[in-house]
Amino acid sequence: MPELDSTHDPARRSWVPGADAHPDFPIQNLPFCIFSTPGGEPRGGVAIGDAILDLTKALAADLLSSDAARAAETAHGPHLNVMFSLGGKPRQALRSRLSQLLANDSSEKGKVEGCLFPTAECVLHLPSRIGDYTDFYVGIHHATNVGKLFRPDNPLLPNYKYVPIGYHGRASSVVSSGAPVCRPTGQLKSSAEAAPIVGPSQRLDYELELGIWIGPGNELGEPIAIETAADEIAGYCLLNDWSARDIQAWEYQPLGPFLSKNFATTLSPWVVTPEALAPFRTAQPKRPAGDPSPLPYLLDQSDQETGALDIDLEVLLITPTLKRKGLPPHRLALSNTRYMYWTPRQMIAHHTMGGCNLRPGDLLGSGTISAPDPDGFGSMLELTQGGTNAVRLASGEERRFLEDGDEVVLRAHGNRAGYVSIGFGECRATILPAR
Amino acid sequence: MPELDSTHDPARRSWVPGADAHPDFPIQNLPFCIFSTPGGEPRGGVAIGDAILDLTKALAADLLSSDAARAAETAHGPHLNVMFSLGGKPRQALRSRLSQLLANDSSEKGKVEGCLFPTAECVLHLPSRIGDYTDFYVGIHHATNVGKLFRPDNPLLPNYKYVPIGYHGRASSVVSSGAPVCRPTGQLKSSAEAAPIVGPSQRLDYELELGIWIGPGNELGEPIAIETAADEIAGYCLLNDWSARDIQAWEYQPLGPFLSKNFATTLSPWVVTPEALAPFRTAQPKRPAGDPSPLPYLLDQSDQETGALDIDLEVLLITPTLKRKGLPPHRLALSNTRYMYWTPRQMIAHHTMGGCNLRPGDLLGSGTISAPDPDGFGSMLELTQGGTNAVRLASGEERRFLEDGDEVVLRAHGNRAGYVSIGFGECRATILPAR
Repeated sequence: MPELDSTHDPARRSWVPGADAHPDFPIQNLPFCIFSTPGGEPRGGVAIGDAILDLTKALAADLLSSDAARAAETAHGPHLNVMFSLGGKPRQALRSRLSQLLANDSSEKGKVEGCLFPTAECVLHLPSRIGDYTDFYVGIHHATNVGKLFRPDNPLLPNYKYVPIGYHGRASSVVSSGAPVCRPTGQLKSSAEAAPIVGPSQRLDYELELGIWIGPGNELGEPIAIETAADEIAGYCLLNDWSARDIQAWEYQPLGPFLSKNFATTLSPWVVTPEALAPFRTAQPKRPAGDPSPLPYLLDQSDQETGALDIDLEVLLITPTLKRKGLPPHRLALSNTRYMYWTPRQMIAHHTMGGCNLRPGDLLGSGTISAPDPDGFGSMLELTQGGTNAVRLASGEERRFLEDGDEVVLRAHGNRAGYVSIGFGECRATILPAR
Repeated sequence: MPELDSTHDPARRSWVPGADAHPDFPIQNLPFCIFSTPGGEPRGGVAIGDAILDLTKALAADLLSSDAARAAETAHGPHLNVMFSLGGKPRQALRSRLSQLLANDSSEKGKVEGCLFPTAECVLHLPSRIGDYTDFYVGIHHATNVGKLFRPDNPLLPNYKYVPIGYHGRASSVVSSGAPVCRPTGQLKSSAEAAPIVGPSQRLDYELELGIWIGPGNELGEPIAIETAADEIAGYCLLNDWSARDIQAWEYQPLGPFLSKNFATTLSPWVVTPEALAPFRTAQPKRPAGDPSPLPYLLDQSDQETGALDIDLEVLLITPTLKRKGLPPHRLALSNTRYMYWTPRQMIAHHTMGGCNLRPGDLLGSGTISAPDPDGFGSMLELTQGGTNAVRLASGEERRFLEDGDEVVLRAHGNRAGYVSIGFGECRATILPAR
């Protein structure tokens, strides 16, 4: 359980130009990434303002020792899986040391400057080689909204308040922010026709999700108890679970979504650590009267007290016409991670209860996190009530689902009185026409 | 498309003792594997009779050249992913050369002998590092039988005859034959109770499946056409998709199976090549009158003519009491890969139609392959009609589902007049009590 310490001190400032005013990456954040410079190999770094600190260079410059060095040594390659496998202590030591080195009163400023690269000149990659990707469904307002489209009187299935519902996603097609997403072709069947046709999805959608990076993990057959589940979280990101609603509606019974989801999943490339998010921990929201208590394996007092997160989430839409007219992005939704019915620890305890093994660098998605009200709905399916009511943009355009050329941007920020706000960076992609 | 050649000649015999009479691994088979000898590292090999030929040793002994050497060079490590990525030509060249070296008239017998290890002294490992594992549902009799338990009048959902239904499985918990399987604990809810309880599954089942190893694969966004899909198959194995029916019934809506399947999946360790199976190719069975024709992207004449396989499948049950009484294993089912409604090529074309990328060493499961009649049903759920009618064993025991200590063995053989029979080896595991 990360403690609040001097790395969270709002008085701590950085000597890196622009870092203190950076909306995402002030010195209180320090997220990890895998980056490459022109002509260079992908390797581990840490964001500070608009720069990336090269961990391999910092090691070579003798800036790190003991546990901090141990963590940084794992970052020379193109994946952070080994760093994730070390658990919290080395990661925390590295973050604390970097916070000192980057602070105004650092005596090593000269040496550290040589380890920084402008982020704008770098390519950001996926931070881990993802062994398995699991997508949950813990956004209860999303589950209710989607259920209402099918079952107006009984939107939530009976298992929802007992089981942190999840399913296995596709790891091979997870891509990093910025990679364009091709509109998928698939089988489409309208209710008016007897047989499906093949064509590009006409109901392409995004989903606003929190991503969770798995740390050490567990051996096959050895469940992770809720009491220790927090130790298994290496960090967080934003996740856009692109969804082709028409393909999904026709294919999903009885075994769940398949081609409707596996054409692409976009992640923000920064690994925001549990340590950086410590100020934004919060109590799990009280369950509404009448909801069952979580079963014992999902129930732990400290999880209920600090296992939830209070992170503001945002979805922006940029259309070619908005851009051409010089209009700002259209904000589709403001939501918050507090609207997760199950905490990340509960997701981990549930995932492993039958013995399933999680491995370092595995990825969990939260499922779409919608706020209770329409201005916080985390997918177009919900915003337009299944494509019925169009969203109107300042350009005069309408959207029922995404069109070719549209760009979707997800953002997240921890905001709390008495603390410096930190952000997740962007999760962004543009829709290309079907091939 | 593998051709019939001298490697399939039934007159070809091997100098390796016992190979000609071996039920699985005569010289006409030559499946790949990853094996280790006591104290040695896992590496690539090929089965011949009761021995494994060490590919790294064969290379060092200068027994291989050109394409055959190129394939063998990829087999020095603990995974065959790189060999799979090379596609068919090097694999075929290696198989042809090994067939010569192991044949009665080989002039290299002395050198080859030094490359053989008795299989009984080796450990067999998973042949690839599995990036993603996808499970299909192409056994139409299974889908019908399971559907009947829920919808007696309308067992098959409307999408079944259009969509090769599939879903993503868990790669981390795929294990090799012989590894014991722990009975999973999960949420169980009887229809009589309002709330679930937590306990060991009481309805633990196996599923008889064909596994398909993916070769070169495709780039994200670039579908594999049915006409070239055969080139993407690196080999086949047996797959036991263990299933906890009670956990599944409660959790699976709306997103599909999760903990009911992800506690373990067992594979036979031998990669039986498309070349070895060439004699057992067959035409795709004619669809019953009234069934729709496959959509164009799933339809290719050569797939219809030779895209199906005629492989006999078998499930055996060994209980502790059967063993104690000296009784033989109980044969639960005899089935055949001909009962797949969709061919492996159709599965690949469908999987990638929306752009999803397959990577070398990925694994596809067929779904349970049941024969039309009860003596060929590929799961206990079907054999006992959902646990209603027990299976009776010669020991006097009954089984509705699997009990602790039970061992399930899957076997497969290609049998065809004019050809030597070949087998897949065993896919075997024993159920351990819940932790």
